[in-house]
Amino acid sequence: MEIAVYGLGRFGLFWATELSRYCTVKVYSRSKKENLPRQLVWVDEDELLTTPALILCVSISSMEEVLEKISARLKPGSLVMDTCSVKVYPAMKMQELLPGHTDILATHPMFGPDSGRNGIKDLPLVLSPVRIRQPALKRWRDFFAAMGLHVLQMDVHEHDKEAAYTQGITHYMGRVFADLGLKPSKIATLGYSKLLEIIEQTCNDPWRLFLDIQRYNPYTKEMRNRLHHSLEKIFSKLQGSLDISNSDFKK
Amino acid sequence: MEIAVYGLGRFGLFWATELSRYCTVKVYSRSKKENLPRQLVWVDEDELLTTPALILCVSISSMEEVLEKISARLKPGSLVMDTCSVKVYPAMKMQELLPGHTDILATHPMFGPDSGRNGIKDLPLVLSPVRIRQPALKRWRDFFAAMGLHVLQMDVHEHDKEAAYTQGITHYMGRVFADLGLKPSKIATLGYSKLLEIIEQTCNDPWRLFLDIQRYNPYTKEMRNRLHHSLEKIFSKLQGSLDISNSDFKK
Repeated sequence: MEIAVYGLGRFGLFWATELSRYCTVKVYSRSKKENLPRQLVWVDEDELLTTPALILCVSISSMEEVLEKISARLKPGSLVMDTCSVKVYPAMKMQELLPGHTDILATHPMFGPDSGRNGIKDLPLVLSPVRIRQPALKRWRDFFAAMGLHVLQMDVHEHDKEAAYTQGITHYMGRVFADLGLKPSKIATLGYSKLLEIIEQTCNDPWRLFLDIQRYNPYTKEMRNRLHHSLEKIFSKLQGSLDISNSDFKK
Repeated sequence: MEIAVYGLGRFGLFWATELSRYCTVKVYSRSKKENLPRQLVWVDEDELLTTPALILCVSISSMEEVLEKISARLKPGSLVMDTCSVKVYPAMKMQELLPGHTDILATHPMFGPDSGRNGIKDLPLVLSPVRIRQPALKRWRDFFAAMGLHVLQMDVHEHDKEAAYTQGITHYMGRVFADLGLKPSKIATLGYSKLLEIIEQTCNDPWRLFLDIQRYNPYTKEMRNRLHHSLEKIFSKLQGSLDISNSDFKK
């Protein structure tokens, strides 16, 4: 089997390399990559687009542009999968812009070079069938399961609702903690070390991914509002109890 | 050697039990405890206060009241240690209220029944000498080190400044995440699971501990202000980039 990976950013390169343990992986990226892992087969864009299974590893915000660029060049019967961290928006755009003779499977591998550093076994991969027949869907589900992944099938809205609170809030707080300049401490409690790990798990990713997760997931706005509400609630519960001014004995 | 533990709340009971592996531990608490671990020796308040080494495991906010209650009943040459999660305030109160014939060693065991569930080896314990001679200080440092703890000596202000950002922010965010009702998810990323562990590491402790950490550490106010500033900064950086309304395609 052959898989084509379009886009070799931080995630694309990681995912292509993982996939190449199980099948031939052809790759193409807008900008030529130096020092590609040997098992990845660099091809030009035209050749890549004739591969029957195409995985897009491009940023959420460039999906529309990429789809418009490749759409007319895909062969009848090809399968296109995206790998975006949100699902409602790319599923909608793929359905709108890809020709009717192609199959569409939205996917979200819920890991990356940080969380998958010690292997991706048992990590979750979400599949949201958009336009694909059962036998093909089953074949891909089995393929990803054989890679050791925990494959979950869910509706794109179900995914985005849940991801707004899992991935959305984690990336949001990771950026806030990084902005605070939090650093390892010799008096770190176990809880604090978990907090530092959140920075590590989120802030190596490009700022654009953070932005796109917040922008293109229709449910993150509610999440951010609820987060602010909870922060304010704890803050005012605290203010109400602060009957001593705690800077009285500050050095 | 004998140690007296005054106060058997969630932390006091845990700490007394850990200490009892290394020496005789007498205990007393305002309210009588049922089903005490067999190795802890329950005594009445008067007897407890004649023990040469007394460890106070009472809430930060009750320190003043407890010190006033016990002060006149301590024997000359006794050593009093507190175990509060802040250090400036209790050190000041102990110096102010305990008789001059007693020694004072402020301590902060930076763990509890949650983080120490699988043992306390290598976890940090902070010592801040307030009024104690070198030989006695060395003896206690060696004792805690022999328990396997990572013993650190630091000034009370240094401790509180650092703890405001480690413990203070962790407990604050733990309460916010709990208020949001965040729950395990089948699509949890590694980062999100760290975030859930923060709730676990902070929200089993009494609300009073949370409140006291915020109230009695003179440096948490600045921490909370900076946290809010960073949240606002990320929020407005985001708003500036939200050129599409992300609820347009909400179901």
